[in-house]
Amino acid sequence: MRYELYYWPTIQGRGEFVRLALEEAGADYVDVARRGARGMAALNRLLESGKTRSFAPPFLKTGNQIIGQTANILLYLGPRLGLAPKSESSRLWAHQLQLTISDLVDEVHDVHHPIASSLYYHQQNPDAARRAPHFTRDRLTKYLNYFESILAANSRGSRYVLGRNPSYLDLSLFQVMAGLRYAFPRTMKKRAADYPALTALAERVSGRPNIASYLASSRRVPFSEYGIFRHYPELDR
Amino acid sequence: MRYELYYWPTIQGRGEFVRLALEEAGADYVDVARRGARGMAALNRLLESGKTRSFAPPFLKTGNQIIGQTANILLYLGPRLGLAPKSESSRLWAHQLQLTISDLVDEVHDVHHPIASSLYYHQQNPDAARRAPHFTRDRLTKYLNYFESILAANSRGSRYVLGRNPSYLDLSLFQVMAGLRYAFPRTMKKRAADYPALTALAERVSGRPNIASYLASSRRVPFSEYGIFRHYPELDR
Repeated sequence: MRYELYYWPTIQGRGEFVRLALEEAGADYVDVARRGARGMAALNRLLESGKTRSFAPPFLKTGNQIIGQTANILLYLGPRLGLAPKSESSRLWAHQLQLTISDLVDEVHDVHHPIASSLYYHQQNPDAARRAPHFTRDRLTKYLNYFESILAANSRGSRYVLGRNPSYLDLSLFQVMAGLRYAFPRTMKKRAADYPALTALAERVSGRPNIASYLASSRRVPFSEYGIFRHYPELDR
Repeated sequence: MRYELYYWPTIQGRGEFVRLALEEAGADYVDVARRGARGMAALNRLLESGKTRSFAPPFLKTGNQIIGQTANILLYLGPRLGLAPKSESSRLWAHQLQLTISDLVDEVHDVHHPIASSLYYHQQNPDAARRAPHFTRDRLTKYLNYFESILAANSRGSRYVLGRNPSYLDLSLFQVMAGLRYAFPRTMKKRAADYPALTALAERVSGRPNIASYLASSRRVPFSEYGIFRHYPELDR
């Protein structure tokens, strides 16, 4: 089964959560829009037509089916890639946590774009500077405390969030930690000691053979000030 | 099967999407926190402890299982309440659209709270006034055009988004239209002609017997300036 992933070619963004799952599983996939202008044209075509077109990338094409929304793509891929738990209740729980990660990602984006995603950062940086401390002090702390406590409560004695085997959720938490460290290095360094379980999990994921080789490859788009996790020192005080 | 819904008792908010599904199906449920101080204490207790606690309300308790994240709750309830399509691919598609509604709801919230949800509106209304026109002009239009075109493409000849029978998605689109009309009456009135399918759908849902009787009851919390859909005339120019 060959998967076609459609996402913006120059950023990690929301597509990265899907890329990591496909890479960990060694799945047969194509990152379509990274294949040049024809790939981008294909992305735009699927975005603009069809009964089940998506509101925005990422979306995944498999056979005739197109699936959009990051967490929904992982809900679909998880069992097929061996990256989801078996029971329905555990799958809902994993999906719930993935949706909470989506919420955090939205808030991270809006730190640098509080007014409009259609404006540049420099057109809204006074607002961003007002939003940032609320994020780093209150919201980020609330999210990380939540995931740290969930991790501690669920993985007792296990290596991954849901038990002995890694799931897409572990990959997503790795990505969140990597992104936060890129965007808010000062804040994250100061708080590292508060999140031993998340820190250890991120380390463990980055050391998995397929992930390590992906991260070292040119398939991993670098973090930058075009993506969701952006480093602006003035927002990381 | 008795369901316990946990959500803030004084607003419609995200919980309303779940309430509508339970009401349409005539399900046996308790809106726990609306039962006074003991209900609120129970909500806070479940929010603060347990291996599968939620990051935020709403969450649903059924037997020993607790399920959080609005769209995830509907993913679980849909088939059980007869409000979801049968095939896996249709269920993923419905869930994808529900997640896109969640994204719209987040953006609606951030129109009046662009800086921090912990601040009052009056502490961020200059920023809100800057964000609002980007929302009403660009984002709202993009979302409504999307749902209108999906509706037109999918329900051809049918009465509901996914065919002859209503799903939780129809109820959610009704709620979105009701909320947008409350929050942005001027904008929505001016654009009404652009969204005939959404308008007809909302009308059809509000006339369904269980929904009509729910909307007329005291179980329906009124819209207000404490919820997600808030009417501030200065944001609806």
